[in-house]
Amino acid sequence: MNGLMMNVPLSITAILEHAERCNPDVEIVSVTRDNPRHRYTYREAFARVRQLADSMAQWGLAQGDCIATLAWNDYRHFETYYAAACSGYVCHTINPRLFPEQLVYIINHAADRYIFLDPDFVPLAEQLAAQCPTVQGWVVLSPEAQMPATSLPGAICYETLLAAGADSFVWPALDENAACALCYTSGTTGHPKGVLYSHRSTVLHAYATLMPDAMGLSHRDVVLPIVPMFHVNAWGTPYSCPMTGAKLVFPGNRMGDGATLATLINEEGVTMSAGVPTVWLALLAHLKGSGQRVDSLQRVIVGGAACPLSVMEDFDTYGVETRVGWGMTEMSPLGSVNTSPASREKYSDEAFAKVRLKAGRPIFGVEMKIVDDHGAELPRDGVAYGSLKVRGPWVCSSYFKLEDSDAHAEPGWFETGDVATIDPQGFMAITDRTKDVIKSGGEWISSIEVENVATDHPKVAEAAVIGQYHPKWSERPLLVVVRGPNGQDLTASEMLAWFDGRIAKWWTPEAVEFVDELPHTATGKVQKVALRELFKDFSFD
Amino acid sequence: MNGLMMNVPLSITAILEHAERCNPDVEIVSVTRDNPRHRYTYREAFARVRQLADSMAQWGLAQGDCIATLAWNDYRHFETYYAAACSGYVCHTINPRLFPEQLVYIINHAADRYIFLDPDFVPLAEQLAAQCPTVQGWVVLSPEAQMPATSLPGAICYETLLAAGADSFVWPALDENAACALCYTSGTTGHPKGVLYSHRSTVLHAYATLMPDAMGLSHRDVVLPIVPMFHVNAWGTPYSCPMTGAKLVFPGNRMGDGATLATLINEEGVTMSAGVPTVWLALLAHLKGSGQRVDSLQRVIVGGAACPLSVMEDFDTYGVETRVGWGMTEMSPLGSVNTSPASREKYSDEAFAKVRLKAGRPIFGVEMKIVDDHGAELPRDGVAYGSLKVRGPWVCSSYFKLEDSDAHAEPGWFETGDVATIDPQGFMAITDRTKDVIKSGGEWISSIEVENVATDHPKVAEAAVIGQYHPKWSERPLLVVVRGPNGQDLTASEMLAWFDGRIAKWWTPEAVEFVDELPHTATGKVQKVALRELFKDFSFD
Repeated sequence: MNGLMMNVPLSITAILEHAERCNPDVEIVSVTRDNPRHRYTYREAFARVRQLADSMAQWGLAQGDCIATLAWNDYRHFETYYAAACSGYVCHTINPRLFPEQLVYIINHAADRYIFLDPDFVPLAEQLAAQCPTVQGWVVLSPEAQMPATSLPGAICYETLLAAGADSFVWPALDENAACALCYTSGTTGHPKGVLYSHRSTVLHAYATLMPDAMGLSHRDVVLPIVPMFHVNAWGTPYSCPMTGAKLVFPGNRMGDGATLATLINEEGVTMSAGVPTVWLALLAHLKGSGQRVDSLQRVIVGGAACPLSVMEDFDTYGVETRVGWGMTEMSPLGSVNTSPASREKYSDEAFAKVRLKAGRPIFGVEMKIVDDHGAELPRDGVAYGSLKVRGPWVCSSYFKLEDSDAHAEPGWFETGDVATIDPQGFMAITDRTKDVIKSGGEWISSIEVENVATDHPKVAEAAVIGQYHPKWSERPLLVVVRGPNGQDLTASEMLAWFDGRIAKWWTPEAVEFVDELPHTATGKVQKVALRELFKDFSFD
Repeated sequence: MNGLMMNVPLSITAILEHAERCNPDVEIVSVTRDNPRHRYTYREAFARVRQLADSMAQWGLAQGDCIATLAWNDYRHFETYYAAACSGYVCHTINPRLFPEQLVYIINHAADRYIFLDPDFVPLAEQLAAQCPTVQGWVVLSPEAQMPATSLPGAICYETLLAAGADSFVWPALDENAACALCYTSGTTGHPKGVLYSHRSTVLHAYATLMPDAMGLSHRDVVLPIVPMFHVNAWGTPYSCPMTGAKLVFPGNRMGDGATLATLINEEGVTMSAGVPTVWLALLAHLKGSGQRVDSLQRVIVGGAACPLSVMEDFDTYGVETRVGWGMTEMSPLGSVNTSPASREKYSDEAFAKVRLKAGRPIFGVEMKIVDDHGAELPRDGVAYGSLKVRGPWVCSSYFKLEDSDAHAEPGWFETGDVATIDPQGFMAITDRTKDVIKSGGEWISSIEVENVATDHPKVAEAAVIGQYHPKWSERPLLVVVRGPNGQDLTASEMLAWFDGRIAKWWTPEAVEFVDELPHTATGKVQKVALRELFKDFSFD
């Protein structure tokens, strides 16, 4: 017997309409190339979104066709998100930091029909255009007066396109399972793979991120999404903020600039921000150097990479709460958030430092478990570690156009590729990537923990650990180090001595090699595959 | 084209499992007849819920069968909620304050198979049992030692029943649209009508209520649901608290006792509570009389009836934020919450007093509109008022077993029966019930506003306004007053003079009648139908 409740689909269109009705005067502020501080309201934004959708309707696209973006966080990118998704198209956000051959691959794989791009990316697009036969037009996110000269075939001025549309456009009814957005993950090997979000998954994810134990956004918040809109929908903030009436502040292409961020925070009264550790390092360096403060800022969500404790402690001194978030492109992205335990007073400072670095508790909707090599579930005791699997309505079931080839090893569960512990209070902590874990004498060594200890050494700029064949232990850790500016005299024995008392003795690397630089992916992660290739002839003998 | 996201159903079972994994040690505290302060954890609660479900499985019921409750807010009622819903049955919460003939009607209409009842209600049940042929057993929420002597046929001891089950019980997979709970609304006329909730509607409603602008619950909260679990699922708190890890404090049959409430708040560290104005009046009277404070309490949600400004102002002095909520049984129940506008400083104290009394802004998921007599939508200008219609995934599509007869006047929209305004910032304010509005010379007079002014008079205990035939204006307001203890000398002319300057001149009642008491429904609302009957021969001549 079914309940007798209205069959109202979960949709991004409903977010737009809710904001128009309930928070029409709330502002969206943006840094763009043509305006250092553009500001308007949700009312104006969504009237323009309807104009844009009306213009796009003239293109004769089919439901599910991909509209791509190559853009920074600003209001035009925001408008494109909504116009595409609410029209029934798919907003394919492209990471401009990918290598050109990857960009060409994903544009063709998605069969993008139009690409909306920031003027900054016109030179990049000009290199790619000839190899992208599905693209019928390149829409430059600019007013007519600032349109750059370009050789792009079918270049269209965004503001001219938008002005041709009517804001009386009526949104189509959409199924809640309809696709709305597409984002490719770039692994360290193989082609990038596409994750195809639905209206349903996007709305449910936004509800969950709004919970006080996740991002906790209200209509009193002013949110600065530093995490790019081309990187998993800026963690859902373009949806969650209009849902709750929070003001949005978009940093445009200045997202890495500490001074701009501090100015935006102070002048716009930013209360909450979200980004990767790198941007916080830039902001904190600027604050320390300038003596500026960020008094309106209440909390930041840190994700995308492990957050150094020093970032948290620095934010502590500014009265800003740091929350570690964990997720993946395949998870929309949010899976867990670390909010301080209610019983903070029961922890010593040292124990608390350990707890706050964990990836946190799953937000309701995401289920997690850890399993051993045979797929058997491991205890949630904070000690046992195993492969982390997740499931939930905003976790991907398969990759775009790879539906047949990538069935999950265990039906219904997504393999994150991470190794993790889960403690009795539900706090998950990532200890490694499955591929990077080192198996020494049948036991696992966490490469991440070894790397963290190595990186703490004042003479080390960067460090990576890989497992190398060992005749007795099967594998042992090899530490590869890039010396810091003041570390040119760092020796292997000095490096190894550093591990004494900082880590289990048998986790201490078997050997150290020094290099000038480590191989990185387009998103800045160490390419362990390339590193292993580099040391394929290395031997512990 | 559909998204490629996991098809994981929204379910109450997922709430239970989330709490077990992520907040196993969080407490549920209850006042029961056999224990003035029972306490255990979510881990223990949900192990018992599995035991109960295992025992219930022996009954051989079908999915969708109704398990009814006649119970106060406590842990056994909580367990019954989950055991029934997660087993695929429907938890039918019965309001014990209904008249016996209504109780018999709804038990038979729902075809309840078992009724779980508090020992307090055994005498009531004994009166009804012979008229309830579908009921196979009466489960008394008690341990064996405290079982009351009873003539109930098939009386079962709850604790004995539960102890017979195994906590290894495995939950069945359920469709998200499956029915999970049933609650009847008692109108002022006709039979009560049943609202049948689904797993999907319940989870979505809980997500929405958790938002900071709604109840804003986190794992740091301690929640005291004073609103009964037999009244629209205690506004969803039995679901929302386990979703977020908040501690629950159930007041049992002491929900109306100010002293008990204050003690529970102080001893359990309650941060948030929810209830109707009457209970707040009891709590505040106790605080004023005893000099006690409630320092842990941060906010209260007030709903079910209009909240007097004096309640808010009294809570202000205790540092407690009052949030008006508005909803209906047909809306799961929450439709809107009034959180202070972000721009509080822009309001004068007088203007703010007006704003905070409004029903608030819709929470995301609920759409509202006001329409005129012809169904045309009216402007959201804060002035125009019309019939309020709502829609959303937790709004009822039709009543239980009345699916054919009660199609909505406008498909897809539920008629609330309220008259309301909506202002440009999205704040809705109820001005009247559609049936109670007074049409004077073609214009509407809000009976609620007139009643509020009347009730503010120090000599008035209670007041109600009804429209009576008038030869010139078609209808004019008649004010019916119950004098207060110090108001025995109150005259009609003194009463009418009170309206001068407090209300539009033409809204002032045409006449005043004094009575000893007003007719009330089982839930304490004034029965206007009975009142009109009482004055059917009244004439303004």
